[in-house]
Amino acid sequence: MPSEFTLIRRHFTPGTRHTALAGGDDCALIAPRAGRELAITTDMLAEGTHFLPGADPEALGHKTLAVNLSDLAAMGAEPRWAFLALALPDADESWVAAFARGFLSLAGRFDVDLAGGDTTRGPRNLCVTAIGEVAPGRALRRSAARLGDDIYLSGCTGEAAYGLVTYRRRVEAVEADVARCRYRLDRPMPRVALGLALAGIAHAAIDVSDGLVADLAHICEESGLGAIVQWSRVPQSSALATCSPEDRRRFVLSGGDDYELVFTASVAARREVAARAAEAETPVTRIGTMVAGECVTVLDSSGSEMTLEQAGYDHFR
Amino acid sequence: MPSEFTLIRRHFTPGTRHTALAGGDDCALIAPRAGRELAITTDMLAEGTHFLPGADPEALGHKTLAVNLSDLAAMGAEPRWAFLALALPDADESWVAAFARGFLSLAGRFDVDLAGGDTTRGPRNLCVTAIGEVAPGRALRRSAARLGDDIYLSGCTGEAAYGLVTYRRRVEAVEADVARCRYRLDRPMPRVALGLALAGIAHAAIDVSDGLVADLAHICEESGLGAIVQWSRVPQSSALATCSPEDRRRFVLSGGDDYELVFTASVAARREVAARAAEAETPVTRIGTMVAGECVTVLDSSGSEMTLEQAGYDHFR
Repeated sequence: MPSEFTLIRRHFTPGTRHTALAGGDDCALIAPRAGRELAITTDMLAEGTHFLPGADPEALGHKTLAVNLSDLAAMGAEPRWAFLALALPDADESWVAAFARGFLSLAGRFDVDLAGGDTTRGPRNLCVTAIGEVAPGRALRRSAARLGDDIYLSGCTGEAAYGLVTYRRRVEAVEADVARCRYRLDRPMPRVALGLALAGIAHAAIDVSDGLVADLAHICEESGLGAIVQWSRVPQSSALATCSPEDRRRFVLSGGDDYELVFTASVAARREVAARAAEAETPVTRIGTMVAGECVTVLDSSGSEMTLEQAGYDHFR
Repeated sequence: MPSEFTLIRRHFTPGTRHTALAGGDDCALIAPRAGRELAITTDMLAEGTHFLPGADPEALGHKTLAVNLSDLAAMGAEPRWAFLALALPDADESWVAAFARGFLSLAGRFDVDLAGGDTTRGPRNLCVTAIGEVAPGRALRRSAARLGDDIYLSGCTGEAAYGLVTYRRRVEAVEADVARCRYRLDRPMPRVALGLALAGIAHAAIDVSDGLVADLAHICEESGLGAIVQWSRVPQSSALATCSPEDRRRFVLSGGDDYELVFTASVAARREVAARAAEAETPVTRIGTMVAGECVTVLDSSGSEMTLEQAGYDHFR
């Protein structure tokens, strides 16, 4: 059986483009560009909690990096370096090879250096630390929303949650819709270009990992404001067309794993936001307004408050 | 039961001293000092592989950070930031509180900001990414040993390996020696001051996590050289006095987890090395010489080559 070192060397040796020293030493060495701040995020994915045993390793490699790049996108940072720590139950070479393909393919797409990591034996666990650069003062923070700001959402939400449902039970739906939702769940594409385009323009931003309402609530909490969302403005994926209205609402408002961006910007910046989003080739929709208050209210088309499912996912509840 | 967020907020909110934004956002923001390179390391500790179920959580918190700071020390970098990702099987508050005490106490000692992290449910797994600063060109690299260099070791090795043995079986030894060796195993103290003192003076360095010979072999491999170690010069801990000669040799040469530094420096730098080590209040011993070749040879007092146990620990073998 090949050793851990052999496996990792064989499958995880991409060329690094902006790393002074990667792998083969106690630390990696990087030289950030002069005057930049670094945005740093860590996400740990545990088997059984974030993915099922038997999950496609190539998709998992993609997603493990994608969720971290999504955090960088939400700060408006340019992804530069990633560090990967893996616990594996066995030295399954085909698994490692497929995982590496998924991971490195996404890294290459965003010019991210895999600069270091660690491998050990244990229940499967994937931990990535990703580092991006951002000009001082331009990072998008959850706490930066202002009273009266527009609230925007990139793309649409709910597809990933529905994708998960289709793995769990048989659904009556068009095959292409099921495939699309599963793809969203398995291979989310971080909104890196949009995040970069919005830095310095948008006020607050967050990526939608726990659900639209739950994540917008984090902006409210950190900014000391409330949010009103117009349900009629929230984009509805055609892939959810066969869901019941209740299910659709739940997936769109409370489903997680979509990795879209929710952000706020001043009303005066509407044209600029539209132009930047267009440059980034990313659809964005204005879905509501930041108001005085402390929570997220979703209004239906008659202006009545909609009841929401318990929002957000807390691993220990 | 408190939630993951509550537990982490309650026990992991130290003051951060050099972090622009820590926690509560998608990323942490840090501003490295102008002109510095960053040394970055990631270590993952899995229950059952690196520590036993039931391990003292406060010691584990210490060790989880210590092994990363040791990597920074081996590069001659100044520790600055740490990121902690945790998978926990349950929300055991007393465990989290004790773990946090151990972790934050060591972080405080070395002025390290806990700048971010992640928590999830899963088999216990602790992953730290630590970041240090180093002046360009001054990092100590495994590949930088030169022909004829002296080889030095800080402190002494073997105590941690013997400490592990005393947990596994009853030994005939003085109680204080057992306690000392267990303490070395459970609460290693990274050689940060020595690493900083050696930056720009020493050539190659590595920390002894896998065993003296195995780690020195990494320097040989990366530097394209061999090493000759004089067994009679290798420091012998008095705490191993009651071990058999075979066991003692094995613990000292092949035992892991000591987190001492092995480093090389030119013969001309002997006085400077001694002065820097004294400033860092760290004992160092000259134990051998870098030679032409590609492996580590240990000579006994008669000049004969000693036979070594299989060196180094590979989790998948």
